[in-house]
Amino acid sequence: MKSFAIGLLGFGNVNRTLVELLQRKESELRERHGIECRITGVASRRVGWRADAAGFDVADLLRERNSDAFARMRGGDCKHYNAWLDAAKPDVVFEATSLNVETGQPAIDHIRAALEQGAHAITANKGPVVHAYEELRELAARRGKQFLFESTVMDGIPIFSLFRNTLPAIEVRGFKGILNSTTNVILTGMERGLSFDESLGRAQQLGIAETDASHDIDGWDAAVKVAALVNVIMGVRLPPQKVEREGIRGLTGEAVRSARNAGAPCKLMCRAHHTESGVSASVRPEQIPLTDPMALVGGTSSIIRFETDIFPGLTITEENPGLYATAYGMLADFIRAAGS
Amino acid sequence: MKSFAIGLLGFGNVNRTLVELLQRKESELRERHGIECRITGVASRRVGWRADAAGFDVADLLRERNSDAFARMRGGDCKHYNAWLDAAKPDVVFEATSLNVETGQPAIDHIRAALEQGAHAITANKGPVVHAYEELRELAARRGKQFLFESTVMDGIPIFSLFRNTLPAIEVRGFKGILNSTTNVILTGMERGLSFDESLGRAQQLGIAETDASHDIDGWDAAVKVAALVNVIMGVRLPPQKVEREGIRGLTGEAVRSARNAGAPCKLMCRAHHTESGVSASVRPEQIPLTDPMALVGGTSSIIRFETDIFPGLTITEENPGLYATAYGMLADFIRAAGS
Repeated sequence: MKSFAIGLLGFGNVNRTLVELLQRKESELRERHGIECRITGVASRRVGWRADAAGFDVADLLRERNSDAFARMRGGDCKHYNAWLDAAKPDVVFEATSLNVETGQPAIDHIRAALEQGAHAITANKGPVVHAYEELRELAARRGKQFLFESTVMDGIPIFSLFRNTLPAIEVRGFKGILNSTTNVILTGMERGLSFDESLGRAQQLGIAETDASHDIDGWDAAVKVAALVNVIMGVRLPPQKVEREGIRGLTGEAVRSARNAGAPCKLMCRAHHTESGVSASVRPEQIPLTDPMALVGGTSSIIRFETDIFPGLTITEENPGLYATAYGMLADFIRAAGS
Repeated sequence: MKSFAIGLLGFGNVNRTLVELLQRKESELRERHGIECRITGVASRRVGWRADAAGFDVADLLRERNSDAFARMRGGDCKHYNAWLDAAKPDVVFEATSLNVETGQPAIDHIRAALEQGAHAITANKGPVVHAYEELRELAARRGKQFLFESTVMDGIPIFSLFRNTLPAIEVRGFKGILNSTTNVILTGMERGLSFDESLGRAQQLGIAETDASHDIDGWDAAVKVAALVNVIMGVRLPPQKVEREGIRGLTGEAVRSARNAGAPCKLMCRAHHTESGVSASVRPEQIPLTDPMALVGGTSSIIRFETDIFPGLTITEENPGLYATAYGMLADFIRAAGS
């Protein structure tokens, strides 16, 4: 049995759901994978830098939502990240803070320090992948630790580990897909009769779109995912700013509906393919004929089709991801890291 | 660098293509995976039990097709399987002989003896999986070797390794899919205007259907694949004879075309799901509405949709598999075994 101290960086939906999932899968983790764990550190803007080397009570953690409540719990409040690492002594850090598209910071610094201290680093944040993949991968390898990030694209559907673990010696020539669910939900709403603004408002009410949804609507989230895939599975360095990008802001409800009625619905398509000089990558609305399975992917579902030297078309579709889908990717990364 | 002696059981399309692929990926195997190999044993009805501990010349192997030609090559002709194992001393045996639906023999005996002698056993033959999965898996584990069979379902698309390596701690509740390409090609031909017999004849001319195609047409191939998946990824023992089975022999071209025209084409659907008492599994022609991506899968393509506790719908589609698709599954298994 291996025992792991866990540090949670960020304590929003993703890491809270992860804590629930760790609890739900506790006996399987123990019996099948020989993994025991306790949460020794929790940090977020709201709760501060909380550490308890003996391990927090999971029920308390899931109940409490603010700094005052945490202050009543056992465990100290650290002054800064390095003090928190020293106090929590995590064997694995789950990084789930929000994305900084331009620089990937401060998540990169946090992951670097965690790896240097000898922890595995698992992130649901695309920033460190698109801005520091090679550096963090090499640092992890030098320390005999893992830097894993399965949850950054298509929730926890195994994309990166598919190529890392199950498709050895294969060459990825390119891919296309629908990778941003917020825009897909908005487009689906527009097909059903809403205007762009109404559909956005509906998605915001449902908690699918953020209050400021421009990151999704303008194609940035999709572009960052494309860049992550290009960097990791195509092995070509590509910052998200180099992905040609057009969002869905310019589409009217009428245009979306007439595209659907003409048998070729509008989708925010992500594309990348090898060229002679590197990789060409784009995110833009396209009309997709109904004979292409991409056209059938609506709402929060997503899809990706890889072109490889062995399989001319290998497609993975995720339908209506459940509550646990993103956190599951982090759990699966944890099991991989624990077995490494 | 690890050096592997390879024994090939069966020397038809699959193992011949594997030899080509090993040659094509030679530098990647060496540089990236630290694998070197030589073929020390080749056995088939046509060439006999040939062994050469120093390694056959690959160009010779790929050129020669019959026993006389092999007799001119270096290396001895063994009297039987055990003598061949002793002479070839394989570190890994690639078993690609034809399927015995009822018993899985003699492939099971061959794999058992290979594992007992300390070789990894990699098979493209579903028989050993549906009739002896637990025994061979446990034997392999006791010997510290691998029993792998990725190529048995959907060519080399990673299905078994997906659940073994990349989706830990997940529960598969059921699956549905189109897993037999011969019947899918015949149905596609019937949709385009052919009768059943004409479409079968065309598929035979193209080398897609065998001279006696009843194994495919009557749903046996699909049922054996369903049983393999149920045994391995659902962890429930199910012989292929327990899969409810109806083939496509009873379908007329007219029925197939009118189903397509009504927007719900006929597909030979495979299904399995957990029930209170175990697993219910079936193979039968069904009409699938065009809003379901299954309906879009034609010709030699295949598709499978898993329902799991984490992902309500996780679908993998293989479009128009290339020449190397099946052999690639064996190569990927080899790399996994070599790294174990």
